Amino acid sequence: MSATWGKNFKVSIFGESHGSHIGIVIDGITPGVKIDFENILEEMGRRAPGKSNISTSRTEEDFPEIISGLFNGYTTGAPLTAIIKNKDHRSKDYSQLKDIMRPGHADYTSKIKYNAYNDYRGGGHFSGRITAPLVFAGAIAKQILQENGIYIASHILSVGNIKDDRFSEGTLSKEEFDKLKKKKLALLNSNKEDEIRELILKTKEEGDSLGGVVECAAIGIEAGIGDPFFDSVESVISSIVFSVPAVKGIEFGLGFDMSKMKGSEANDEFYFDDNKNVKTKTNHNGGINGGITNGMPVIFSAAIKPTSSIAKKQDTINIRTKENTQLELTGRHDPIIVPRVMVVLESVMAIAILDLIYGSRI
Amino acid sequence: MSATWGKNFKVSIFGESHGSHIGIVIDGITPGVKIDFENILEEMGRRAPGKSNISTSRTEEDFPEIISGLFNGYTTGAPLTAIIKNKDHRSKDYSQLKDIMRPGHADYTSKIKYNAYNDYRGGGHFSGRITAPLVFAGAIAKQILQENGIYIASHILSVGNIKDDRFSEGTLSKEEFDKLKKKKLALLNSNKEDEIRELILKTKEEGDSLGGVVECAAIGIEAGIGDPFFDSVESVISSIVFSVPAVKGIEFGLGFDMSKMKGSEANDEFYFDDNKNVKTKTNHNGGINGGITNGMPVIFSAAIKPTSSIAKKQDTINIRTKENTQLELTGRHDPIIVPRVMVVLESVMAIAILDLIYGSRI
Amino acid sequence: MSATWGKNFKVSIFGESHGSHIGIVIDGITPGVKIDFENILEEMGRRAPGKSNISTSRTEEDFPEIISGLFNGYTTGAPLTAIIKNKDHRSKDYSQLKDIMRPGHADYTSKIKYNAYNDYRGGGHFSGRITAPLVFAGAIAKQILQENGIYIASHILSVGNIKDDRFSEGTLSKEEFDKLKKKKLALLNSNKEDEIRELILKTKEEGDSLGGVVECAAIGIEAGIGDPFFDSVESVISSIVFSVPAVKGIEFGLGFDMSKMKGSEANDEFYFDDNKNVKTKTNHNGGINGGITNGMPVIFSAAIKPTSSIAKKQDTINIRTKENTQLELTGRHDPIIVPRVMVVLESVMAIAILDLIYGSRI
Amino acid sequence: MSATWGKNFKVSIFGESHGSHIGIVIDGITPGVKIDFENILEEMGRRAPGKSNISTSRTEEDFPEIISGLFNGYTTGAPLTAIIKNKDHRSKDYSQLKDIMRPGHADYTSKIKYNAYNDYRGGGHFSGRITAPLVFAGAIAKQILQENGIYIASHILSVGNIKDDRFSEGTLSKEEFDKLKKKKLALLNSNKEDEIRELILKTKEEGDSLGGVVECAAIGIEAGIGDPFFDSVESVISSIVFSVPAVKGIEFGLGFDMSKMKGSEANDEFYFDDNKNVKTKTNHNGGINGGITNGMPVIFSAAIKPTSSIAKKQDTINIRTKENTQLELTGRHDPIIVPRVMVVLESVMAIAILDLIYGSRI
Repeated sequence: MSATWGKNFKVSIFGESHGSHIGIVIDGITPGVKIDFENILEEMGRRAPGKSNISTSRTEEDFPEIISGLFNGYTTGAPLTAIIKNKDHRSKDYSQLKDIMRPGHADYTSKIKYNAYNDYRGGGHFSGRITAPLVFAGAIAKQILQENGIYIASHILSVGNIKDDRFSEGTLSKEEFDKLKKKKLALLNSNKEDEIRELILKTKEEGDSLGGVVECAAIGIEAGIGDPFFDSVESVISSIVFSVPAVKGIEFGLGFDMSKMKGSEANDEFYFDDNKNVKTKTNHNGGINGGITNGMPVIFSAAIKPTSSIAKKQDTINIRTKENTQLELTGRHDPIIVPRVMVVLESVMAIAILDLIYGSRI
Repeated sequence: MSATWGKNFKVSIFGESHGSHIGIVIDGITPGVKIDFENILEEMGRRAPGKSNISTSRTEEDFPEIISGLFNGYTTGAPLTAIIKNKDHRSKDYSQLKDIMRPGHADYTSKIKYNAYNDYRGGGHFSGRITAPLVFAGAIAKQILQENGIYIASHILSVGNIKDDRFSEGTLSKEEFDKLKKKKLALLNSNKEDEIRELILKTKEEGDSLGGVVECAAIGIEAGIGDPFFDSVESVISSIVFSVPAVKGIEFGLGFDMSKMKGSEANDEFYFDDNKNVKTKTNHNGGINGGITNGMPVIFSAAIKPTSSIAKKQDTINIRTKENTQLELTGRHDPIIVPRVMVVLESVMAIAILDLIYGSRI
Repeated sequence: MSATWGKNFKVSIFGESHGSHIGIVIDGITPGVKIDFENILEEMGRRAPGKSNISTSRTEEDFPEIISGLFNGYTTGAPLTAIIKNKDHRSKDYSQLKDIMRPGHADYTSKIKYNAYNDYRGGGHFSGRITAPLVFAGAIAKQILQENGIYIASHILSVGNIKDDRFSEGTLSKEEFDKLKKKKLALLNSNKEDEIRELILKTKEEGDSLGGVVECAAIGIEAGIGDPFFDSVESVISSIVFSVPAVKGIEFGLGFDMSKMKGSEANDEFYFDDNKNVKTKTNHNGGINGGITNGMPVIFSAAIKPTSSIAKKQDTINIRTKENTQLELTGRHDPIIVPRVMVVLESVMAIAILDLIYGSRI
Repeated sequence: MSATWGKNFKVSIFGESHGSHIGIVIDGITPGVKIDFENILEEMGRRAPGKSNISTSRTEEDFPEIISGLFNGYTTGAPLTAIIKNKDHRSKDYSQLKDIMRPGHADYTSKIKYNAYNDYRGGGHFSGRITAPLVFAGAIAKQILQENGIYIASHILSVGNIKDDRFSEGTLSKEEFDKLKKKKLALLNSNKEDEIRELILKTKEEGDSLGGVVECAAIGIEAGIGDPFFDSVESVISSIVFSVPAVKGIEFGLGFDMSKMKGSEANDEFYFDDNKNVKTKTNHNGGINGGITNGMPVIFSAAIKPTSSIAKKQDTINIRTKENTQLELTGRHDPIIVPRVMVVLESVMAIAILDLIYGSRI
């Protein structure tokens, strides 16, 4: 187990889906940050289920209780800790999961790793629910970044085979980011909205699920952030992004598409703008050269696999009886987690960038 | 700077393209490993340039001198250090790079980060040359893994828009891996070889460059390796893969393609084979569930951008005069680094897996 | 701030003296450890004040609530978290501490470090109260160590100028350790008990305080634990021992006394005992050679300064008015914390040894 | 093995007494530091043997070759690496050490830990010789600290039972520090010089050895450095000091003597000096309150055990034959290493303080 991340802005998460609490300790936070609690609840609400017919109809009310590190509304510099009480879930729903391994989930691997002592109810520590504390920490990281003129947003780049546009100069501003957050389906090209919604509802009816790609961007980061050789911006961001359940790929800038280009197309040419600031004409590299920020927007996309929990019958194993068997999951499941995972990805990006900036002040 | 990677099998790299030496310290190595020096030279030869008409015609002779940690041919348990002497490069070639920033390179970002004290000759510490010591360490990591029945190989998944097949059951064995290493162009589908070679030669003539995708696989890893929440197998591997210059994306298993599938297609169904071993029918997740290995081959693909150094004229800036200018690079450059970067990716995969296995013994 | 300790058995602590909760996250704990909660309460009781007339008459009732990482009474392998609710303290007692800096305390340094945003009530995060969660974690570490035949105990080596005997072969056994834990004043030479008790009561009447030295020992540790060059057993233990408030010195084995001996006296000569086990005739080195355990008991002593909070009038500064002033502390204070700090030192020793053992399995 | 130390100013050491080279990689060094190479050689000379009749008459000429991280005389920000070539030692001298374990040394523990693969010649990686690279890194750390007005020095606080005075206000200045470095025996009270010299020569004649205590001080450190809870100044300094072979104890300020004082004597009372700077009347706490610097000189003392290598016959074991035996060491040995270890302690103090300062900029 390794539940602690970061070198400068450090987070330690804990909790299980059906335990008493989930939570997070933030270590290394600047003293004197005024915490906007309303904004934290808003951000956590973006991850919560039950908001619409395209997500699960379970309702979670994640109310974080800050139990250390805050005094008179400001961070003290000591570790800031938040705990979130779990509601009573009907544990009986999960009794079959003790022996029947759900395909695509961590049931089998965590059973092997923890000698069958893992809490299997609802995925235990491997539940997507554990990302709620990350959104709490991310909300605070975002508040600190915003005070320094850095803004983060994301949109759905694709659902199944339906594609949105990529971020471009016109959509990379605080104003556009604010608009994006208010959308029900965060697309840059709103024309795709109906098509995507239909696909999701149809898949839901089939008892099946969808995946997609989320594109995240951060604007306002100065040049010179990142610590190669091994703490390149890409290394640090990808390390925390791959902790988010269901992420199976990441690319910076054009990423995999860039591998198909020629050097003369791919290279981002430098120029001095009218104010003698250094810019690049294009931003195929996602704001990063040699693992260090170059002053352009930092952009990555993450591939999210389709929700592993589906209503359709699946082949699998009974680990106790050592027999092949079949599994039919009941209960309510997200037909797609992409819309809910967006704020999680923004959060871990905020945590990673703050960690990098703190480290680069040295 | 952060030149040290790893928690259990730790590497510290150092050196510049035109400094006196490059090298690496390996800390945490098991005592009593018999080092096969010939094999190390072989592996380093796979990275060296000048082997064919599709790579640069510069010749490097990387001969690593082991200066600590080895006694009577066996590792002692103390840090194992290797240094590689740099040959005399004609430093005059690089004088213009002091002020003219090459697009796609770290020239600008490293100048900003290190207050213009960085060694700019040949990219300095940001040169691809710095990956040679990683191949040294990777060769040793592979030797340790092989003693434990774990084998690593890679092939070219694509060059530009030309695609090879993905790894599949038939190509995931020690025998097939050995064949792959002997090929001039490591493709699973040899029919594509001529087409790819032609494309490279044509691009070279144009003074342009190409990128591609490399697929790496490790077979023989037992289930239960990896330390979520934050040291998931994907997090640890991606963290070191993104340290390799020119990598702009990574995906595990089917990765981005998986995001287009439905849950019922994407989920890897479990079964007991005839020997009551747990297997999955497909391996879309690349051998990893919930950040932990499941016993199937661990597979990732990395997107390599086209070589940034091209002969074509490019727009850029003169950082001293603060004027926009143009740049025409002379000298010999790889039209594509994909074939040379394969062994680097295998090496960092070996280092990452060994670090994870050492950590998981706990 | 750096609230996380350890490489393999990791602890993250949080909380303030007058905040809502204090607590700890334990990361890297073996799955399947049966937790003896009664024993945890017993250990925490050893640190609690109000037990006798030689400690403060404040009463704390530290009841740790385990909110993650435990399932059916066994550790799951996921982070184990405990929180302890703070009772309502009368915050008015501490209002003067906002500006008047108590000599010997962290009031001034934490105000400087955290730009006056620190929680100054009762010392905030710098209160000795924050060691309660360490005792929780230490109790668990001890339980794991005991399952492996390793036992830890401590005694008071000195109070002021009154000295107890050092540990010797006859007092280094599980049986003697158990006796020691039951004593009101943990001395090896009980003849000193009355003298020490009198000195403490006399000092308490004077409104003054005392310090002392605690000797800690661990028996049953096999040879070969410790990771030089930098993670020597002494480095790892001292690193966490110096986190305990009031510790100003540490020595291993005879330590400072050893510096006065000649080599021929100081060297611990090896011999094979009748069972061909390697032993040393003496144990001046405290069970450690070259930073690695040699199979003999591991022993250290820690110097505890006199309680900084005293009733006597002291000169100091008012940081707001920038004037020299005087301070007379009211309230109840320990005339000596040595008896209460013993279990804290045993706890951090247990945490450090477990971390070293986990690391040495590699 | 753990050969890497530090979070911000990181060092990785390598090498064996009789290997080809010893050396160090410094990672995280500020770019643009002008390196004074003469000063480095001077510092390394202070550690070298063969300077007088009170040290071993072996001669080492430690000439560090900087092979990376330096360009035009300035640090580049990339890892700075130095290697030192070992002279040919007569390896036959050490052949008996393969099986006969020297008391007080790491021969036995390293044999156990590394399954007999350790390089036993001259202690291998456990030789005091490995501290030479630490002095190299310390010299650079001192140069950076001096640019920031921070100076470090040490003196011999005791040899056997003969005591020097402790540092006091009159001896804590750059001028006094410079005088101290020029002394043959670095004592504050020169009256003790003859007595100490006689004791050393007499002990040398007896074929025996002596230990002692070294007091180190750093002046000019601002208040607010240090990162409790776990990276207290004491934790960080002690962690690296205990990596230095032969150190068996450390105390900050008055340390163990402070444990004998009453609170009213021990507490350092604050006052504003005429310039409204915060000072303490005494400095019993060694410049540290609550793990954070308070602006007064930071002071620690380290207990050095007597040299383990002595000419006198000793009982010990033959690990191969499993028989008790006797050992008579030949060759030249330091009758006392205290004078040579002083610069090593200053070096690790400089490294630790720089690491803390870099970390506290956050």
